[in-house]
Amino acid sequence: MNHKNDTPVTVIGLGLMGQALAGAFLKAGHPTTVWNRTTSKADRLVAEGARLAPTVGDALKAGSLTIICVTDYQAMHELLGASDIELDGTTLINLTSGDSGQAREAAQWAERRGAHYLDGAIMAIPPAIGTAEAVILHSGPQPDFEAHKSTLDALGTVTYLGADHGLASLYDVAGLAMMWSVLNAWLQGTALLRTAGVDAATYAPFAQQIAAGVAEWLPGYAEQIDNGSFPAEVSALETDARAMAHLIEESEAVGVNAELPKLIKAMADRSIAAGHGGEQYPVLIEEFGKPRRD
Amino acid sequence: MNHKNDTPVTVIGLGLMGQALAGAFLKAGHPTTVWNRTTSKADRLVAEGARLAPTVGDALKAGSLTIICVTDYQAMHELLGASDIELDGTTLINLTSGDSGQAREAAQWAERRGAHYLDGAIMAIPPAIGTAEAVILHSGPQPDFEAHKSTLDALGTVTYLGADHGLASLYDVAGLAMMWSVLNAWLQGTALLRTAGVDAATYAPFAQQIAAGVAEWLPGYAEQIDNGSFPAEVSALETDARAMAHLIEESEAVGVNAELPKLIKAMADRSIAAGHGGEQYPVLIEEFGKPRRD
Repeated sequence: MNHKNDTPVTVIGLGLMGQALAGAFLKAGHPTTVWNRTTSKADRLVAEGARLAPTVGDALKAGSLTIICVTDYQAMHELLGASDIELDGTTLINLTSGDSGQAREAAQWAERRGAHYLDGAIMAIPPAIGTAEAVILHSGPQPDFEAHKSTLDALGTVTYLGADHGLASLYDVAGLAMMWSVLNAWLQGTALLRTAGVDAATYAPFAQQIAAGVAEWLPGYAEQIDNGSFPAEVSALETDARAMAHLIEESEAVGVNAELPKLIKAMADRSIAAGHGGEQYPVLIEEFGKPRRD
Repeated sequence: MNHKNDTPVTVIGLGLMGQALAGAFLKAGHPTTVWNRTTSKADRLVAEGARLAPTVGDALKAGSLTIICVTDYQAMHELLGASDIELDGTTLINLTSGDSGQAREAAQWAERRGAHYLDGAIMAIPPAIGTAEAVILHSGPQPDFEAHKSTLDALGTVTYLGADHGLASLYDVAGLAMMWSVLNAWLQGTALLRTAGVDAATYAPFAQQIAAGVAEWLPGYAEQIDNGSFPAEVSALETDARAMAHLIEESEAVGVNAELPKLIKAMADRSIAAGHGGEQYPVLIEEFGKPRRD
């Protein structure tokens, strides 16, 4: 997909992820300049053909596209905030972990300095970088993303979310919530089944099938949320709550943890108490959409 | 698949689910006898060709296979416990909702009365009964299941789990935990994204993809549990915990509910405190496998 592999790229921050990013650009043939506070972390990359810049300012001058991947947003501001750093005309893609508020602030700051700014989030571990498995989310001005997409393609499956710079962080944590929730539900089920001598490998395909099957309902359920109308086409919340009670009772009876089942029921009970017992599950968006009331 | 659609079947209990079960047997051509305390619930089925038995005892005599689907196990014991009810030689398939302990007790009780007993759980809503989408789990002696599988096929996708009568209930609640967890994680993400003006329909395909993708990891992760060894091949739990903190902070910053993120982190923190911070996520099975210690 990348027909311009001669585009120079700069990578600032050479932790495990930064090294993987720079390595993927090098592998794709891009002239790659790197900078890191501890220069020894560049050794392997330099051996592979990277140029180690003596200063951050020098690294930025190597081309028009700079990827920054450091510990946190404060570290980014410390590195790029010095008055002698020239950002005017540069495109900065910030893959540092942070929240949506930090991303939006950083965008304003960078744009005041004359930079094009995209915020990004990496939904992958370093060894996956450079493969299609590595999903990298981007948000900010679409023209800035499109201008560099062919270069970014070297990193993995590169996705554009929208103009709001906070979107990459929001999608990232939303995806993580899904990841941990699927894992925790599987662990809950595995713990339940182990009390009957069923091993984890026997239960896993069943859990996998349920997770993938339920995931297919989401687009349909999303329509209920967007319409703000939750008719009980499949099941009413008060019916679900009785089955949730079964889940809690079963967990307690066999002596496994019941905190996740109890949270599931507590959220539903609150929605039922608010008058939604005859509506369908997605009505719980009203509970998820506001802080706990107490 | 069913070449013996002349096998007579009895269905006891004609709530919405019982009616759907009897209707599916009728549609498949089985001579179907039904019984319900309130006889009017049999009207539609009788119009479709069912025979309404005057008593439970009479209903049981109509054939060798009886499906019971009533409010709870107590209701089942009340209906079938009378001394004049003949169960000797009958196969009872109990699709009443209950827990694994109730299923095992009911099996002992039925077997003392001379019945073959299978416990079952229906992972479907009544309108899905009779289609492949309706997954119906069975546990108990395998020969009893095999003897009636061709008849049960009329109800949906009929699955055998193992000889322990408690398995159907355990798989059922485990599957429900997965269902609600996927839905709740999706609602958490939807709530987060809505704060940035992203509608539910836009976010849903992303959530669907993550859920299905993570589900594919489960068989591999299950090997770690069965081996009791959790090397951090992908990520260490203490790294995950930092991202969990991001999820909590982001949820609180944008003003959505943070209870699910906090529970995710609390479980991980407890495992880290127990010395597992350098291991991989499935090590949390040790927390899920025991009641909360406090």
